[in-house]
Amino acid sequence: MSSDERSSVAQLLSTGNARNLFDSVEAFLFDCDGVIWKGGKLIDGVADTLEMLRSKGKKVVFVTNNSSKSRRQYAEKFHSLGITVSEDEIFSSSFAAAMFLKVNNFSPEKKVYVIGEDGILEELQLAGFTGLGGPEDGKKTGDLYVHYPIDHDKSVGAVVVGVDRYINYYKLQYGTLCVRENPGCLFIATNRDAVGHFTETQESPGAGCMVAAMCGSTEKEPILVGKPSTFMMDFLLKKFQFGCSKMCMVGDRLDTDILFGQSAGCRTLLVLSGVTTQSILQDPSNGIQPDYYTAKVSDLLELLGP
Amino acid sequence: MSSDERSSVAQLLSTGNARNLFDSVEAFLFDCDGVIWKGGKLIDGVADTLEMLRSKGKKVVFVTNNSSKSRRQYAEKFHSLGITVSEDEIFSSSFAAAMFLKVNNFSPEKKVYVIGEDGILEELQLAGFTGLGGPEDGKKTGDLYVHYPIDHDKSVGAVVVGVDRYINYYKLQYGTLCVRENPGCLFIATNRDAVGHFTETQESPGAGCMVAAMCGSTEKEPILVGKPSTFMMDFLLKKFQFGCSKMCMVGDRLDTDILFGQSAGCRTLLVLSGVTTQSILQDPSNGIQPDYYTAKVSDLLELLGP
Repeated sequence: MSSDERSSVAQLLSTGNARNLFDSVEAFLFDCDGVIWKGGKLIDGVADTLEMLRSKGKKVVFVTNNSSKSRRQYAEKFHSLGITVSEDEIFSSSFAAAMFLKVNNFSPEKKVYVIGEDGILEELQLAGFTGLGGPEDGKKTGDLYVHYPIDHDKSVGAVVVGVDRYINYYKLQYGTLCVRENPGCLFIATNRDAVGHFTETQESPGAGCMVAAMCGSTEKEPILVGKPSTFMMDFLLKKFQFGCSKMCMVGDRLDTDILFGQSAGCRTLLVLSGVTTQSILQDPSNGIQPDYYTAKVSDLLELLGP
Repeated sequence: MSSDERSSVAQLLSTGNARNLFDSVEAFLFDCDGVIWKGGKLIDGVADTLEMLRSKGKKVVFVTNNSSKSRRQYAEKFHSLGITVSEDEIFSSSFAAAMFLKVNNFSPEKKVYVIGEDGILEELQLAGFTGLGGPEDGKKTGDLYVHYPIDHDKSVGAVVVGVDRYINYYKLQYGTLCVRENPGCLFIATNRDAVGHFTETQESPGAGCMVAAMCGSTEKEPILVGKPSTFMMDFLLKKFQFGCSKMCMVGDRLDTDILFGQSAGCRTLLVLSGVTTQSILQDPSNGIQPDYYTAKVSDLLELLGP
């Protein structure tokens, strides 16, 4: 597909173009929040749709910016919702953060301070790194540190920031001191999503909130490892034998999922079951147009048949 | 002073130019953190310098971006450090936030959600507005709200964000919901300072951190009422009979104090007792040059004599 065609408006998914898409694609890459589930609830028809895709020989892969869980924890969440997924079908931004350090030969003797939840700490540990902070420092909410300087570990060589529902001043201060004062300390963002769904009905601040806070105090910009950066795509390309044009990225966000898919040269399908509405998609101010859009993942099943 | 002269490099304060500055200026506007004090400690020689300026008939005014205190609380802090200052010599960004609502005819029937400390709530109350949030919501750090949607007050018509050492996810979520979902809700930042001094020896995240967090989750930019915006200058101009060229802004920050002074047409003096070092000032990447710079406020006393 040429860039001229790409800049045209998204097509509503229909029986005709869904068949065309299906035939030309070998792997479907799914975002999770707002696509597979919302909060703790599976979106209608997802299980049957995934089963249909697999039964027809398509690969399914899950590429999520939500860093709160490790791949192991994501696999557990899938299982608890009745879907069997193996850990190596999951590419989470928590995993991406650990892999970024790995491929950049981050010294295992240095430490990593985490503003985020335990998914990041688990992936760091699996990759052989020592993480500090995370949930543990979420308890430091008292007055104790406010009037006294805090000591920070000079061997911290990277601060990883993801969504953190236990964000507090102590963590922001600790992370800021590392980035500002430890020479060469990396500032890595799992992603910059403004909001996400922790409950089915309400949007809540996403990693973009915590990352922006750190940008505000450090006056630095982070290295982004989640969508829309294509860092995770490198792992997908190593795993599969076919190229990006044989993949279709399915997501609910224009500025992460769709941009990620397009940057990598994938086909793109926007579903309206998450944060993006049809009016946002079709607003003249929106410059990101997926190839196709549809209400929800199970429209694939409905249009293609079982 | 023409803009050509202004873009030239700052002059080191000396006996000659200090006399010239002194004679041409009727009011000295001082920033507080890093200029008058650092953390809870007065900077050497400040008391004698202020006394000298007053004894020679100069007005002294304190213009601070730190929103953690109200003007009353600032006057108390000055008193506790042995300096007598009246409340109406103090222009804090907490006061500016309340005044912004006042001059813009914000309805007293609407409420104001505060991500910040009690100085903002006190100034809102004195101005006749109803504040919510602040320190009270700093206690909401448990698991309770994480898995459930929270109710936010639909009558909140403004969110004011300042430095908040008790920042947490609840406050960020509440403020984000108000800005994103209450029609016409204002998003007001007291200031955007990256870091400040809560202790004498260590820099800590400033309001710029909390404001950026809210920008990250709301995807909106705030209305800025503190330095370098010139909103507070309107109050100073109403108070004094002389114009901006008869004022000298004395501060430790280039991007707030010096920019504020220059934007308003004041003379500017940078002191190196706070966050800006001589090497930052003289770095080729720095585009903000004060008229003069010196180590600390008391150099005025030393150069001019008692």
